[in-house]
Formats: sequence, C-alpha cells, structure tokens
Amino acid sequence: MRFQDLKEEVCRVNQELIRAGLATLTWGNASGLDPALGVVAIKPSGVHWTDLTPERMVVLDLETGTVVEGGLKPSSDTATHLHLYRAFAGLGGIVHTHSAYATAFAQAGREIPCLGTTHADHFYGNVPVVRELSPGEVADDYERNTGVAITDTFATRAIHPLHMPAALCPGHGPFVWGASPGTALENAIALEAVAKLALLTLELNPSAMLPAHVLEKHFQRKHGPNAYYGQQAHRETKP
Amino acid sequence: MRFQDLKEEVCRVNQELIRAGLATLTWGNASGLDPALGVVAIKPSGVHWTDLTPERMVVLDLETGTVVEGGLKPSSDTATHLHLYRAFAGLGGIVHTHSAYATAFAQAGREIPCLGTTHADHFYGNVPVVRELSPGEVADDYERNTGVAITDTFATRAIHPLHMPAALCPGHGPFVWGASPGTALENAIALEAVAKLALLTLELNPSAMLPAHVLEKHFQRKHGPNAYYGQQAHRETKP
Amino acid sequence: MRFQDLKEEVCRVNQELIRAGLATLTWGNASGLDPALGVVAIKPSGVHWTDLTPERMVVLDLETGTVVEGGLKPSSDTATHLHLYRAFAGLGGIVHTHSAYATAFAQAGREIPCLGTTHADHFYGNVPVVRELSPGEVADDYERNTGVAITDTFATRAIHPLHMPAALCPGHGPFVWGASPGTALENAIALEAVAKLALLTLELNPSAMLPAHVLEKHFQRKHGPNAYYGQQAHRETKP
Amino acid sequence: MRFQDLKEEVCRVNQELIRAGLATLTWGNASGLDPALGVVAIKPSGVHWTDLTPERMVVLDLETGTVVEGGLKPSSDTATHLHLYRAFAGLGGIVHTHSAYATAFAQAGREIPCLGTTHADHFYGNVPVVRELSPGEVADDYERNTGVAITDTFATRAIHPLHMPAALCPGHGPFVWGASPGTALENAIALEAVAKLALLTLELNPSAMLPAHVLEKHFQRKHGPNAYYGQQAHRETKP
Repeated sequence: MRFQDLKEEVCRVNQELIRAGLATLTWGNASGLDPALGVVAIKPSGVHWTDLTPERMVVLDLETGTVVEGGLKPSSDTATHLHLYRAFAGLGGIVHTHSAYATAFAQAGREIPCLGTTHADHFYGNVPVVRELSPGEVADDYERNTGVAITDTFATRAIHPLHMPAALCPGHGPFVWGASPGTALENAIALEAVAKLALLTLELNPSAMLPAHVLEKHFQRKHGPNAYYGQQAHRETKP
Repeated sequence: MRFQDLKEEVCRVNQELIRAGLATLTWGNASGLDPALGVVAIKPSGVHWTDLTPERMVVLDLETGTVVEGGLKPSSDTATHLHLYRAFAGLGGIVHTHSAYATAFAQAGREIPCLGTTHADHFYGNVPVVRELSPGEVADDYERNTGVAITDTFATRAIHPLHMPAALCPGHGPFVWGASPGTALENAIALEAVAKLALLTLELNPSAMLPAHVLEKHFQRKHGPNAYYGQQAHRETKP
Repeated sequence: MRFQDLKEEVCRVNQELIRAGLATLTWGNASGLDPALGVVAIKPSGVHWTDLTPERMVVLDLETGTVVEGGLKPSSDTATHLHLYRAFAGLGGIVHTHSAYATAFAQAGREIPCLGTTHADHFYGNVPVVRELSPGEVADDYERNTGVAITDTFATRAIHPLHMPAALCPGHGPFVWGASPGTALENAIALEAVAKLALLTLELNPSAMLPAHVLEKHFQRKHGPNAYYGQQAHRETKP
Repeated sequence: MRFQDLKEEVCRVNQELIRAGLATLTWGNASGLDPALGVVAIKPSGVHWTDLTPERMVVLDLETGTVVEGGLKPSSDTATHLHLYRAFAGLGGIVHTHSAYATAFAQAGREIPCLGTTHADHFYGNVPVVRELSPGEVADDYERNTGVAITDTFATRAIHPLHMPAALCPGHGPFVWGASPGTALENAIALEAVAKLALLTLELNPSAMLPAHVLEKHFQRKHGPNAYYGQQAHRETKP
C-alpha cells in the first residue's frame, strides 16, 4: 500500500476523535501531511467512524489538490486543510471537530481566555476567534475561504501558528494543528479541556485572568529553548 | 418471523437510545414504518431495554392502529407515532426521548436556536416548541393530541417536516423523525448535541446567532439539490 | 445462607449505585426490608463497593435494631433507614446517595420543582426539602433524627410517602425509597435525572413550570387506579 | 526490584488518575513516600499513562532530592512534592491534578466552600486558595515555590494539613495529600466531587452554606477520636 504509514496514522487519529469524545456521528475530520512526498491524507466524506480503514483514507497532492489515491470523495472540509498546510509552515497534522466546549466558544464568538496553566502549557495566550466570512465567501469556495479567514486573522494579529495551534471559526468550531496528526489530536484534546475549564471558571469569576508571567513560564517550560518538561532536554518550539 | 427486518431495526434503534445516552430506565421509544406493508413496529410499553428483542416489538396497522403481531402492549406513546406517520409524508422512523439538553429546552418552553453549523447541518432553523395542550386534550386522547399539537404547529408556521425533523413538546421532550429508524436516531443524537451546544453558547453569549447565509449554506451542502457532503453526489432532500 | 434473597438484592442494588453513577468511593447505601420476617438488610459501613458480597450485608431486626446476622458494622446511616421503614407503611427498599444534581438541590436548600413529564412520571409534585436539624438533634442520635426530620416534614405538609418516594435533607443529600430495593434504585436514578433536567431548565427559564393537569395526567397514567403504562393493566399506587 | 511496593502503589495511583477522570493526556502526577527509607517515588515527566510501569517510577532521596533509582527524569512538579513531604508531617502520598471542577475554582481564585456533608466528610472547612507567587518566585525555582506558597498559606491561616488535605494553587490547580498514595487519590476524587457539587449548588443558591455544627459532626464522625464511620472503631485523625 502506498503512503501506508501516513494513511494508518490519519485513520487512527480520525478514530481517536470519537474515542476521545471530540466527535459525534460523522462530524469532525483529521488529516496528515507527508512533506517529503508532498501529499495529504484525509478522512473520506460522511463515512461512519466504524467503517474507517487506512485503505479508505483519501490521498491528495498538496499543491494541486487532486486525488492521487483512494476511491472515495475526500472530506468536505478538504480545501480548508490544504490551505492551512500551504500557508502555515511546519504543520504535519490538522484536526477539525465540533467538540462541545470549544464549539460553544466559537458559536458565542468569544476567544477562549487563558485562565490557567493547563491552557498555557499548550496555547500561548487566548485562542482567537477568526473573522467572519462575507456572504460571497460563503457562497463561493466556502471551505477554502474558511482557511483564508484563519490565515488572514493570524497574519493581521501577528499570531505565530506554532505558538497558537488552534483557531475558532465563528458559528462553526475549532481547527487545531500540530507537527503530526498525533500532536494535532493532543492539541484538540487539550483545547476541549481548557475550553471546559474556562467556561466553568467564568461561571465562578467572570473577571478571572492568569498573570502574564505565569503564562510565559508554563509555555516556555514545555515549548521554549530551555524546556524541561518531558523526557527530551531541549524540545523544538513546535506545536 | 413476519416483518423481520422492520422489527430488527426498530429493536436495534430502541437499544441504541440507551447506548447513546439518550434514554434512562424505560423512558423513550422508537418506531419504524414499512410503507409498502402499511405497518408500524414499536417498542412494547415499560419493558427494560435489556429485555428488548425483535420478537417483542409490537406491529400495528398504520391506518387502524390495531395490533397485527406481538403479544405485548405497545408503547403508551403509540398514538403520537401513528398520527405523525399519517400526517407527515416521507417518514420511516420516529424516536421519542427525554434526553437531557433537548428536554431542558422543552421544559423551559424555548426553541433550540440555530447558533452554529452543527445545527444547520441537520435542522433548517430553530427547533420549534409546539403549542400547549388544553386540559381537555390532556384528559381525553392525550397521546394522539400530542401528535396533533405537533402537526398543527408545523402547519400554522409552514414548517416543512423534512427540513425540520424534530419538535419539542413543552414540559415534555422531543419527538424526532427521519426517512428510516436509523436516520431518526441520528437526528435524535444530533438534536441532543446541538441542544447542549446551544445551552453552553447562551451561557457565554446570550445574544449569539448564526448569520442566515451560513445556515443556508450548511443545510444545502448536506440536504440540497447540489449537496456535496458524503459519498452520494445528489442526496434527496429527506431528513 | 439465611435471608439469602434479601441479601443478594440489597448487595446488587448497592453495587448498582456505583454503576449508575449515583455514588462515589464509599458514599451512599441501600437497604431492603423483608416485612414477613421483620428484618432489614443493609450495606456494611465504609466498605468499598468492589468488596461487597451478599454475605457481607448486615441484617438487623426491624423493631429493636439489633444485628441478627453479619460480622460487620452496618452503615452509619442505619438508624435513618430503620426509622423510615417503621414510620412509612409500604416501603421495601431505601437508597441514600450523594448523587450530584439531587445533592446540589439539597445543598442549596431548594425543592426540585416539577418542570416536566419525566418528573411527573415518578414524583407527584415538587420533591421536598425537609426541615433543618437543631444543634441538639445533630449532637445526639443524629442519624435517627435525620429520619425524624423526614417523617415530620411529610406529616406537617401532608405528603403521602408512596406518592413522593424521595426527600432532600438540607446540606446533605437525598433519601429515596420504593416498594422494593430495585424500585428504590429506579426512583434514585429518576431523581438524579429530573434534578439535572430541572437545573438545566432553570438556566434557560427561571420561571418555568408544568401545568397541574399535565402533572396529574402523567402521574396517574403510571400510578393511578386506571394506569395504562407498562404491561400490567392496573398497577397498585405504590412507589 | 528495590522499593518495589512503593513503586507499584505509585504507578497504580498515577494510572487511577486517568481512570477516575481526574487527568487528561500527561497532566497530573502522584507520588508516595516511604518514611522509613526516606525516599519518594514519583511519575516520570511527560510519559503517557499507558506507558507507565512500576519500573519507570523515579525514586528520589527525600532530603537531597537526588535520584536514587530510575532512568527517567522525574515529574516537573517534583520539587513541589518534596517540599510538601518535608514541611507537613504525616504525609505518605501526594496527588496533583488538573481535574475540571477543582481547577475551575483554582483558576477563579475562589475557595471551595463547604456546602454539605459530602465535603465535611473529607475536608474540615473551605478548601483554601493559596497565595499568588511573585514574578521572582515564578522565574526562579518555580516548582519549589509552589510548595512554599502552600505551606506559607497553611501556616499563616493556622490550617492543619491533616484536617485539610488539599490546597488550590491559583491559576493552576489542586494539590491533594493523604497518609498514603491511595488515600491521597481518594481525597483527590472527593475534592473533584465536592467542587462539582459546590459549583452546581452556587448556581441554584449563591448564598448557600452549611451550619457549623453539621460540618463539625460529619468531620468528627469519620476522623475524630470517637469516629464511628467504617469498620475501625477509633480511626486516627489522619487524612
């Protein structure tokens, strides 16, 4: 099987979305990039997770977006994934979910505020809500424009995608990424957890906030040049 | 066994209500219609889900409501199901639950507002609360009148039942339907998920709303004449 | 083994409290009465649920409260159970839990309002909060006085214990009963479900209420002399 | 294997953190002290729970903090654990989690108020939020200073660590302890349960409180000199 490792990891991460409680029915999708081969593997559209197998993953050419392997239609969100891989250097995996708490923030049009070290361990500041799409952007090439809104927002606000591996599309839900599909999945799990923590915290104290020096400390001890969390002495500053 | 396929699917969907966390104890029930044979299979009344077997499903004549097969009493909500099958063309399955978030909206007498694309993928606008029953309608033929209140409300507001496969009975809970028992189950799972999302969203932003053109886009990309979600090119506009 | 059936059912119901998510660690306890033999079987105090066996249940004389079988100390709440069996005719099982939503209402000192048919199917009106204990009643014979506060409150308000098989002890949690240990367990599961529904409903509509004629209809269709829910034509008016 | 019993119990408790729903991904850690040998065993840093084995636990000298056995780096929170063992007499286990409800109180900077007997059974009063760290304390020796803030706060407020086996670090989460790793785990499970109960209770009644004599009664019946909960007649006043 061509692209076997990529297809197996992408299949596994799509299945994990369900097991981790991040996805329901056929909602949500995950993809992975092989940068050496210039191909992206992604979930087929509307297929139930119990029917997912590595063979059923759809492989597309990163640049042209044409299918290079697989007999099924790719996820309807494929154009969003491709745009993000092209625009953000260093991404190896992308996960899109409708997980409850992160999606609630997206539907509310509110950033997920950084209220604690759990958040700071994964996301360097508030998780942004990206700009709305115009009616024209929705009518025409909607899925690619969803990606464009994300990259526009990150450019306008000078947010580094490797320091902030998630974005909330308003009225829709989160896109989350990482250096690999597995890391994107971990970030999606972390995003849902910190969104739940934030909502509960705001119930108890609407003006809660985390001091900036604590955010700095926690992000850097895990992702900075002198990171000391985990078993590797000096981790790369990668999501 | 007569009506074997129908009874097996209806039994399975009744059991799935429990597994999906939509029902507790003996609450909730599912039915299925075989339009060619003109019969409806439904859960027996008050039987614990671990005791459900295809043989124990009760089969009734659609027009007369008389039992044509099965030794147990049908669900106490049978008259509601029969009324809906007769009044709404195109239904093949109906599910009634007391699932927590959808029932909370029903008890609160509030529509489930369409606040995001998760909702728009399944329900074409706010999920309506149907009119209250009068004391006379409750005292006499209560279960059939529950169905009448649903169909009255859809007629009055010109809601298409295949675009809005769910209704909230105030102080009671949701009835959900679809082209088959399995589709009705999926819609019931989706309803509970979007009700939870809506409640969480309203906590974060009481004036949240989804732009109309995004609702239009998402419903149509899954259910419209040019639908492109899933593996079938042109899906029927069926719930 | 003497009292074998009783001990097996009481053991099973204590284990079910954990499986149903109603109890954590060693919190919560269930008992059963054999009215013919005049004995009550109850969980031993502070024993982890994985160590519960029928042999370890403690059997006490209903009138004297002395242990007639079993080598372990009975639950610290035994005196509450015994008082309720003596005061309320028709009880065959009692369950005490610290389940989250019902306990939240008890800690808040608020009745669980009857906001829907799910509630009316099990409880004939609002689930009451019983009176506070005086410091003297807490210091001396605390557990028996917990039961006295329940029976006092039911007497003062003329609440029929077979129509209202649950009470909330303020700052503490619910006691729930039924014609058998299994029925008490079902009522405890129903109580937690309706408490959750009520809290969510109040978030959406603080002035929600259920019309009295709907409460009447639902309680009577399950428990009244002409009950038609379930497989028995005429159920006894028993919890 | 040296320190086998200690390493096995610490490994098991770290795994239980995940099973009990108190930890996600690699968040959270548990340790245990062998006071006779003067050594602490703790989870290795950033290791996934499915990869935890007794052999992978890291054993450190209590006084010097040097690793005496194990090939992996210890948890990044090790200095907090060591400080607490040194400062608080009678501790045999410590658990640190990011469990949702307890962490929400920590992020909100609010004590967990004692609102019911479930709380009073485990914690003698409100669970305190410890003082904030200064920027200097965060920059330099952060993890040890986290422990110092806990012990400072307990000293300032004259809180007995064996009566209050938990503390909330603001913007971070709870540290919980006990006479053994297993007891620390039980206290962490209880803390999360009472935090959830408190949040739900405050939603229903923002001015809820538990009378002082009920708190006294429940703490003493489980932990006082005349304790009568459980199978031991006179328990030690240990957490």
